[in-house]
Amino acid sequence: MTTLEILRRANNAKTAVALAGSDVKNKALYAMAEAMEKRAPAILEANALDLEGARGAVSEVMLDRLALDGSRIRGMADGVREVAALPDPVGVVLRRETRPNGLMIEKTAVPMGVIAIIYESRPNVTSDAAALALKAGSACVLRCGKEAHRSAAAVVDALREGLSAAGLPQDALGLVEDATRQSARELMTASGLVDLLIPRGGAGLIRACVENATVPVIETGTGICHIYVDKDADLDMALDIVDNAKCSRPSVCNAAEVCLVHRDIAGAFLPRLKERLVDARAARDLPPVELRLDQGAASVTGGVPAGPDDFDTEFLDYILAVKVVDGVDGACAHIAAHSTGHSEAIVTENAAAARRFTALVDSAAVYWNASTRFTDGGVFGLGCEMGISTQRLHARGPMGLSELCTYKYVIRGTGQVR
Amino acid sequence: MTTLEILRRANNAKTAVALAGSDVKNKALYAMAEAMEKRAPAILEANALDLEGARGAVSEVMLDRLALDGSRIRGMADGVREVAALPDPVGVVLRRETRPNGLMIEKTAVPMGVIAIIYESRPNVTSDAAALALKAGSACVLRCGKEAHRSAAAVVDALREGLSAAGLPQDALGLVEDATRQSARELMTASGLVDLLIPRGGAGLIRACVENATVPVIETGTGICHIYVDKDADLDMALDIVDNAKCSRPSVCNAAEVCLVHRDIAGAFLPRLKERLVDARAARDLPPVELRLDQGAASVTGGVPAGPDDFDTEFLDYILAVKVVDGVDGACAHIAAHSTGHSEAIVTENAAAARRFTALVDSAAVYWNASTRFTDGGVFGLGCEMGISTQRLHARGPMGLSELCTYKYVIRGTGQVR
Repeated sequence: MTTLEILRRANNAKTAVALAGSDVKNKALYAMAEAMEKRAPAILEANALDLEGARGAVSEVMLDRLALDGSRIRGMADGVREVAALPDPVGVVLRRETRPNGLMIEKTAVPMGVIAIIYESRPNVTSDAAALALKAGSACVLRCGKEAHRSAAAVVDALREGLSAAGLPQDALGLVEDATRQSARELMTASGLVDLLIPRGGAGLIRACVENATVPVIETGTGICHIYVDKDADLDMALDIVDNAKCSRPSVCNAAEVCLVHRDIAGAFLPRLKERLVDARAARDLPPVELRLDQGAASVTGGVPAGPDDFDTEFLDYILAVKVVDGVDGACAHIAAHSTGHSEAIVTENAAAARRFTALVDSAAVYWNASTRFTDGGVFGLGCEMGISTQRLHARGPMGLSELCTYKYVIRGTGQVR
Repeated sequence: MTTLEILRRANNAKTAVALAGSDVKNKALYAMAEAMEKRAPAILEANALDLEGARGAVSEVMLDRLALDGSRIRGMADGVREVAALPDPVGVVLRRETRPNGLMIEKTAVPMGVIAIIYESRPNVTSDAAALALKAGSACVLRCGKEAHRSAAAVVDALREGLSAAGLPQDALGLVEDATRQSARELMTASGLVDLLIPRGGAGLIRACVENATVPVIETGTGICHIYVDKDADLDMALDIVDNAKCSRPSVCNAAEVCLVHRDIAGAFLPRLKERLVDARAARDLPPVELRLDQGAASVTGGVPAGPDDFDTEFLDYILAVKVVDGVDGACAHIAAHSTGHSEAIVTENAAAARRFTALVDSAAVYWNASTRFTDGGVFGLGCEMGISTQRLHARGPMGLSELCTYKYVIRGTGQVR
């Protein structure tokens, strides 16, 4: 089936999903979870073919992301059940007011319509994204990376069975048949058939969407996150925060890539940072962090000289660019020039410095004395997450169910004219 | 100065505006209003040149929109003062929560950054848009239609003087120097320099933005608005509503262009509609409405046969397309296929029919027993309006000051790591 035909079918199915009550949607979600578990053998068989095809072509890390087993499938099913347990965002009255002329105005959350998602090779995104879109009352069209396509198709078969079990149209969930550049382009330009496109992937995919899309897009996930260690920082706390933000999970978008250090404490802090991130880790047989140092940092500690791109790179690895700055304003100027607007942190005991930093830094999440790793829908109390928006329109930071909805005004009158 | 240079300067100025307190912004707004009144002679002189250039090239209606006089300039100044009196949207805490791990999370409204507006020939848009952007804490770059360019430049000179008077950088308000297609294209593609582009104008401009823009856009203002007269309508109320929605101001986007009528009451209603909109208006020397009738409507009343485009045209004139439908679902199906998603209304005494209509119709504003003409920021209690969004992302319907802002999360910790 062509991508356009899949989109047309999703559009025909979207009203049934939009009008479905919470009970029907939740019944579908539980049935989707059950169908995934029941069809685990078929999903694993498809996954084995994907793995076979990908071996040699992608890194070991990618292969591990792609691989499924019984426990991971159960985890995906449980993820869908967790979405069922969340409050329904559709129909929530955001504002209600009776105007002086007697008109009763209600601003009400309503579904987006058709949500398209372009993603890469994690099979769990297939079920997570489909579940969140359904709970938010929208039809959903997925376009998976080619390495994971057979796994995704097997998962989608199970999920569509779950939709049917609740009396919802299977066409409310579609998977684009071929994972080509062309099919991604078709989604980006399907004006009138896609109400929201969410690209989840690397910087190249995001850029292609921004440049080519004629449908509404929310950019997600590119995170060049900064931690600024102020002259008034508690240096022990700063070490813990930088260590956590860099090393606890370097492959995720909320991991720190850059550490900015106030000139006055660079001499005291940076040797300790090197000891903690490089030497102590190596001694414990953990991958040491490669420090890429600007001139100021190189003058007080050891590491690799930073190259021209090191302050504009999302390493997603055990690499940290380090730069000495003149203070809060210098840190903020560097962040304004180099950040992707995801998450930044200041470590300081000085409230005035923290206030200035949180006011000046224009990112989705700005932390004072905490790790950037907390930027997450669950941590922020949204209950789930479709991705982290790094743009300004509509949603910023973690996107939960409410952020997957739009609203409309419903106005009741008694014959009023103007 | 090139468009890019104007944008760069606005970006350099945006932080000063974003950090300005309400008192500073309001001082600037009052000074802007005063400067416009003080400089009225220069503005009128520029306007006379614009009018001279436009005469013959544009319609009388357009000339009237373009023309300024002392009273209109005072009206523009008062409009700016009204914006000063509105509550400041910046810094409003939208959500505040302390999480179980002790992190204090605040979701706070913050300025968009640089807002660009492409508009046509109404000089009052220059001051309205600049005032709203400033109050919302953003720098603003305007690109005015060529017919009104000299007037806009004179108004902007006055407004920039007002900015200076409050100690704000004049570069926070820019006017693109030439009103060419090229300069519009430059704004649409200035990625990283424009945080929000609002096109205010005809369908052609909006389409050009959707197709070419790489910066975030909010589509505004195209309104093919429908009124559905149900079989259970109070026909007197229906006549009043259709008359008001069509005739009170046909040139605006919330005017009705299409009337859908339930088959069961078409014979009773449509002759009365013709009497009211055509014969009675002609008798009172008012412009009669041209009814463009589908076959069903033509079989019960007189008018012009509807052509193939009449149900997809924003007439902005004394023209009404009329179609007979089979009921609520037929009306909703027609609306889904032909509406621009602006405003639609049902007239009925039947609550079940009204509930189905308001649930099924997916437009920014859906009315039960009231005129579509009420879709307006002032009427909806927003205090002002930058335009009516007909898209689903970020803002839908009237856009007030809050809709011109984004938000960020500020998180305070005590050293938390994950």
